[in-house]
Amino acid sequence: MRASIIGATGYAGEELIRLLHRHPAAEIVHMTSERHTGDHISEYYPHLMNIYENELESIERVREIAADSDVLFIALPHGHAMKIVQAAAGLPIRIIDLGADYRFDDTTVYEAWYGTAHADPEAERAYGLSELYRSDIAHTRIVGNAGCYTTASILALAPLVKAHLILADSIIIDAVSGVSGAGRTPKESTHFPEFYDNFTAYGAVRHRHTPEIEQALSVQAGEDVTVSFTPHLAPISRGILATCYAAPVAGVTEEQIDAAFEALYADEYFIRLRGRGAYPAVKYVRGTNYCDIAWHYDPRTRRVIVLSAIDNLVKGAAGQAIQNMNIIMGLDERTGLDLVPMYP
Amino acid sequence: MRASIIGATGYAGEELIRLLHRHPAAEIVHMTSERHTGDHISEYYPHLMNIYENELESIERVREIAADSDVLFIALPHGHAMKIVQAAAGLPIRIIDLGADYRFDDTTVYEAWYGTAHADPEAERAYGLSELYRSDIAHTRIVGNAGCYTTASILALAPLVKAHLILADSIIIDAVSGVSGAGRTPKESTHFPEFYDNFTAYGAVRHRHTPEIEQALSVQAGEDVTVSFTPHLAPISRGILATCYAAPVAGVTEEQIDAAFEALYADEYFIRLRGRGAYPAVKYVRGTNYCDIAWHYDPRTRRVIVLSAIDNLVKGAAGQAIQNMNIIMGLDERTGLDLVPMYP
Amino acid sequence: MRASIIGATGYAGEELIRLLHRHPAAEIVHMTSERHTGDHISEYYPHLMNIYENELESIERVREIAADSDVLFIALPHGHAMKIVQAAAGLPIRIIDLGADYRFDDTTVYEAWYGTAHADPEAERAYGLSELYRSDIAHTRIVGNAGCYTTASILALAPLVKAHLILADSIIIDAVSGVSGAGRTPKESTHFPEFYDNFTAYGAVRHRHTPEIEQALSVQAGEDVTVSFTPHLAPISRGILATCYAAPVAGVTEEQIDAAFEALYADEYFIRLRGRGAYPAVKYVRGTNYCDIAWHYDPRTRRVIVLSAIDNLVKGAAGQAIQNMNIIMGLDERTGLDLVPMYP
Amino acid sequence: MRASIIGATGYAGEELIRLLHRHPAAEIVHMTSERHTGDHISEYYPHLMNIYENELESIERVREIAADSDVLFIALPHGHAMKIVQAAAGLPIRIIDLGADYRFDDTTVYEAWYGTAHADPEAERAYGLSELYRSDIAHTRIVGNAGCYTTASILALAPLVKAHLILADSIIIDAVSGVSGAGRTPKESTHFPEFYDNFTAYGAVRHRHTPEIEQALSVQAGEDVTVSFTPHLAPISRGILATCYAAPVAGVTEEQIDAAFEALYADEYFIRLRGRGAYPAVKYVRGTNYCDIAWHYDPRTRRVIVLSAIDNLVKGAAGQAIQNMNIIMGLDERTGLDLVPMYP
Repeated sequence: MRASIIGATGYAGEELIRLLHRHPAAEIVHMTSERHTGDHISEYYPHLMNIYENELESIERVREIAADSDVLFIALPHGHAMKIVQAAAGLPIRIIDLGADYRFDDTTVYEAWYGTAHADPEAERAYGLSELYRSDIAHTRIVGNAGCYTTASILALAPLVKAHLILADSIIIDAVSGVSGAGRTPKESTHFPEFYDNFTAYGAVRHRHTPEIEQALSVQAGEDVTVSFTPHLAPISRGILATCYAAPVAGVTEEQIDAAFEALYADEYFIRLRGRGAYPAVKYVRGTNYCDIAWHYDPRTRRVIVLSAIDNLVKGAAGQAIQNMNIIMGLDERTGLDLVPMYP
Repeated sequence: MRASIIGATGYAGEELIRLLHRHPAAEIVHMTSERHTGDHISEYYPHLMNIYENELESIERVREIAADSDVLFIALPHGHAMKIVQAAAGLPIRIIDLGADYRFDDTTVYEAWYGTAHADPEAERAYGLSELYRSDIAHTRIVGNAGCYTTASILALAPLVKAHLILADSIIIDAVSGVSGAGRTPKESTHFPEFYDNFTAYGAVRHRHTPEIEQALSVQAGEDVTVSFTPHLAPISRGILATCYAAPVAGVTEEQIDAAFEALYADEYFIRLRGRGAYPAVKYVRGTNYCDIAWHYDPRTRRVIVLSAIDNLVKGAAGQAIQNMNIIMGLDERTGLDLVPMYP
Repeated sequence: MRASIIGATGYAGEELIRLLHRHPAAEIVHMTSERHTGDHISEYYPHLMNIYENELESIERVREIAADSDVLFIALPHGHAMKIVQAAAGLPIRIIDLGADYRFDDTTVYEAWYGTAHADPEAERAYGLSELYRSDIAHTRIVGNAGCYTTASILALAPLVKAHLILADSIIIDAVSGVSGAGRTPKESTHFPEFYDNFTAYGAVRHRHTPEIEQALSVQAGEDVTVSFTPHLAPISRGILATCYAAPVAGVTEEQIDAAFEALYADEYFIRLRGRGAYPAVKYVRGTNYCDIAWHYDPRTRRVIVLSAIDNLVKGAAGQAIQNMNIIMGLDERTGLDLVPMYP
Repeated sequence: MRASIIGATGYAGEELIRLLHRHPAAEIVHMTSERHTGDHISEYYPHLMNIYENELESIERVREIAADSDVLFIALPHGHAMKIVQAAAGLPIRIIDLGADYRFDDTTVYEAWYGTAHADPEAERAYGLSELYRSDIAHTRIVGNAGCYTTASILALAPLVKAHLILADSIIIDAVSGVSGAGRTPKESTHFPEFYDNFTAYGAVRHRHTPEIEQALSVQAGEDVTVSFTPHLAPISRGILATCYAAPVAGVTEEQIDAAFEALYADEYFIRLRGRGAYPAVKYVRGTNYCDIAWHYDPRTRRVIVLSAIDNLVKGAAGQAIQNMNIIMGLDERTGLDLVPMYP
C-alpha cells in the first residue's frame, strides 16, 4: 500500500510517519509541506535523521501524488481537504482527512461552527471514529477522522447514551489536553517559559469539537444530545483526559452502568475498561492507540462521572487514522498499532 | 507578634516561613517537626540556609511553645489540632489551624467524612475563608483555615449562590491541583518520572473538600447546596484551577451574573475579577494570595461556567492563614501579603 | 528614588518590576516597550493585574523619561544602551544597563564578539558584578550589569584564580540555563512541546559570555585567563547551574581551596558557601539574589570542580541590577533583596 | 527465543518488556519481582493492561526460569547477577546482565568502586557495548551490558582516543540524565514537587561509571586513559546528554577529527553522526536505540568538545541489551530495534 501525507510537518503528520514506519503493509511515498517545500523532512524533524530523508513536496503536486498513492492522509487545518478531494477526483484513492471537513453529516453545522462554506456537502464519506462507525468506514472512500477531544469524549459517553441511562441534556465534559494539541506553530502563550508550571482553560462554550461530540452522541442516543464542553491546556506534550458528568435517568443502577460499558466495548482491542472506581492516566496510553475508560457513580448527588484518556496524537489523530485505513483496506484493525505505551 | 509553626516541614509550614519572613509585624519563634526534631530547618530545606537556621522542636513541647507565642499556626494533618488546642487551653493565644479540625460548624459532618471522632465540638471557632467570614474571624480565638480546593471553589461560586442566580443542586466543580497539594511525603504515584508528562483524576465522589464547599455555599445561599467535586492532579508544583459549572435560574441574564461578581468582590484586594469571557491561569497568581476569577455563559446549553485560580500553598493555605492572622490581630489584611507573582 | 525601566516587557524588565515592587526606597515611574507602546503592562503580563497598570511608553521619550528619573534600568539587547546613554547625556541620572554595552574595559573585545562598533568606548563605567566590583560601582554613573552565565561562572572561580590555586589555561565551564534565559520571543526550538522533556547544548565555543568571564577572571588572577564555555538549555523556567573544572597548581591542598572560598566570601550576604562535597541546586535559589557555591576535589585526576547556582533573572539580571543600584545610591546592598526562595 | 526478565518492575525491566514486545524472534516467558511476587505486572504498571498480564515470580525460582529460557535479562542492582549466574550454572542459557557485575575485565576495579567482593571473577564474559565489542559479544555466554552514562561517554570519545587525537589525561565528561536513571524507588529528592523546575549535580568525583568509561577508552587508546566525570540530574523522564572535553594532541586538525568519527561509525546503524558544529538533543533519540553525536573544535583554547545523546533506558539499558541479544543469537543487530523516536 502506497501512502502519502499531505501536511507532513505538523504534529499529526509527523506522528503518521512514526506509526506508518512500523506498518507492515504500508510505505510512505510522498510527504508535502508548503513552508518547507524542497527541504528534507529530517531537516525540520531531526529525530527522523537516517530514517526518513524524503524531500518535502508542494501541495501543488497533489494530483500527481494522489495518482501515485493508494491512500492519502490529509493533516492540514480545516478547509484544505475539500479542495484536495476535488483535485483527486476520479482517482482510485482512499482519503483519510484528519481535519474537520468531512466529519459532519450536516454540513450546515460545519459551516456554522467553522465559519467556512462547505464546497463538497454531497461527498460520500464516513465519520472516522473507528469503534462506532466501523461498517460505514469499511465502505467509504473518504473518512473524516474524528477529532482528539471528540474521540475521548464520545467513547466515554457512548455506552451510556446508547443504553439510555443518562439524560440527554445533562452532559458536561471537562477535558484537558497536552500542548501538542495546539499545533506546532510557536505562540507566546505556548512559549516554554510561559506555559511551564502553568495550567489554564480556553475555548469555553464555543470550542469546535462541541458539535462533533453532539452529532455522534445523538446518533447513539437516537435523540438530540447537547453537551457543555470546556477544554483546558496542561503543561505536558501529549495526552487528553476527559472528565464527563451526566445525570442518570431515574432508577438506573450502578450495575446497569457497568453493563453498558461491557456491552459496547468488551471486544474492543483499543478500549481498555479500567472499571468502576478507577482512574485512567494519560501516561498509561502514551504513544499508543488505546483509550482507557473508568467511571464513578455518586449516589449523593445522583451523577455519573466517566473518565477517558487517550494520546491526542495517536487515538486522537494519526493512530485512529491508521486504524481507519486498516478498516477501509480490509486489514486487521490492529495492524501496525500493537504498541506498548512508552513509560515512564 | 511572636508566631510559631507546628509542623514546619510540610509544604504549608514551609510556605508560612517564606511568607512570615516578609511580615513586618510577626517573627517566627518556634518551629516543630516530629521526624526531624533537633535538626535545623535548613538541613531539611536547604533553600532556607542562612535565612532560617531554627532548631526543630518536638510537639511534646507544644504548651511551652504556645505560652511563648502570640499566634500558633498548625500545619498538620487533621486530628492533631484538636489535641493541640487542648494542650494550649487557657493560654492567651490565637490558633490558626491549616487542617480540617475546626472547619465545620456541624462536627458530625467532619466525623462522617474524615472518619474521626471530634474531641472539641463546642470550641468557639471561625471558618477561615477571609473574604466571606471576615467578621467572624475578627472575634474568634481559633480559625479553621479554609482548604485549598475549597477556597478556589467557594470564591468562584459564592456570588452566584448568594444572589440566587443558580440552581442549588446543579453545581459541578472540576478542579486541578499542582502536586505540592499532595504533600511532601514521597510516593510512587508522585515519583518524578511517574508523574512527569502525566495527568489524572483522583478522589472522585468522596474527596473531603466536598462537604466544606457545601457548608459555605449553603450559608451564602440560605438553602442546602450540594456539589459534585472531582479533583485532578497536574504535573506542576503549585496552583489550583477550578472549573465550576451550574445551571442559572430561569430568566437570569449575563448582566446579572456580571453584577453578582462585582457586588461581592469589587472591593476585595485579593480577588481579581478578570471578567466574563476571560481565562485565569495558575501562573498568574503563583506565589501570591490572589484569587483570579472569570466566567462564561453558554446560551445554547443554559449553563454558567466560572473559573478560578489560586496558589494552593498561598491563598489555599499559608497566605490565607496570614490574612486571617492579620484580621484576628486587627492589622490591615494585606500586611505582608502584597506579593507580585513570580513569572515566568 | 524614581526608577524607570527601558524595555519592560522582556523577562529581565518584568523581573525588575517584581523586585522593585518590594524595594522600600524606589518606585517605578516609567516603563517602555516598542512593540506594545500605549498598552498597559498588565495586558501583556496579566499576572501584574491591579498591581501595575502603567501605560507602556515609547523609547522615543527616553530623554524625558531620564529627566524624570533618578535611575534608569535598560533591559534591552546589546547595542541600545549606547544610544540611550547619549540621549540622556548631561542629566543627573544613574544608568544600569542589563545588556552588554558597558561590560567591557576593552571595547575592541566587545566589538569582536558582538560584531557591533562601540559608540561610547570612553564612557566612565563599572562592571556590575557587585561582590567583586563594589567600590568601582559606588563611584560610577553607568553600570554594565554582569551577564547571567558570567555571574555564576565568575563567582565560582574568582576565589581560586585570585589565590593562584589553579592553572590559568585549565578552566572549563559547563553551564545549564532555564529557558527564560533565551528571552520571551517565541521560537520553534522553545515552543512548549518541542522543548518539554528535552535537553541540549548550544553556542559551544562562541558564546558571548566567554570574553566577559575571561575579563573578570584575568583581573582577579593578575594574568590572562582563558576558558572553554559551553552553555546548555534545560526544560525549566529559571536558574543556572555552572559546573566549573580546573587543574590545581602543583601542591595545592584541599584546605587551601576551602580557605580561598572562605577568604573571599565569608562576609558576603548573597553568596552561600555550601562547602566542599555539597551540591547546589537551582531550586534552592529560585526567585532570589543568592549564589550558592560548593566544590569538590578529585585527587585521582587532580582536578577541582566548582558548582554554582543562581536564578538567571535575579542574581543573573534584575536582582543584581538592584543590588548595584543600592551600592550606587549608598543604600544597604540587601535593601529590597532579602528574599526567601519560592519552594517547592 | 524464550526470554525472561529477572527484575521486571524496575525501569530497565519494564523497558525490556516494551521493546521485546515488538521483537519478532523473542517472547517473554518469565518476569520476576521480589516486592510484588504473585501480582500481575499490569497491577504495578497499569500501562501494560491487556498487553502483559504475567504473574510476577520470585527470584527463588531462578533456576527453573533459566531452564525454561533461552536468554535471561538481569535488571537488578549490582551484586545479584553473580549469584544468578551461579544458580544457572550448567544450563544452556545466555545471560545479559544490565547491572555492573560483569562489566569489568579486572574485577579488583569493580571491588574498589562498588565495595563488593566479586564472586565470579573468572567467568567468561564480554563487555556489552555493542559497537565496540561486537565480536566478543558474539562468542560469549555472559554479557555485562554497558551502563547508561558510560555508553554515551565511550561512544562520544572512542573515535578520538582510538585515533590518538587527544591527550589521554585531558578528558572531562559533564553528563546530564533524566530522572528515570535514578530508578523507580520514590525518594525525597525525586519527589515531583521537589525536582520539578530544578537542576543539580551529584556524584562528582566518585560516580561508579567512571572506571567503566576509563576501561573502555584505555582499550581503544592502547594506553591508560583517565577521566573526570560529573553527572547531573535534569527534570525530564529519560535521556542522557554527555558533553565531553579533551585537549587535542599538538598538530591535530579539524579534518582529522571529522575523519576519526567517520572511520569508526560510518557504517553503524545506531550511531547518527550529526557532524561538526551540530547539537544533539535528547528528544531526538527518545524511545530509540540511537546515539546521536556531534563535535566542536575551539581553536582559541585548543579543545575539542564532543556531544552525545542517548535514551538512558534504551541505548543506555534495555535497547542495547536487546542489541547484544541479537548479536549473541546471530540475528541482525537491528531486529526489533528499528524504532522512530516519539516526538514531540
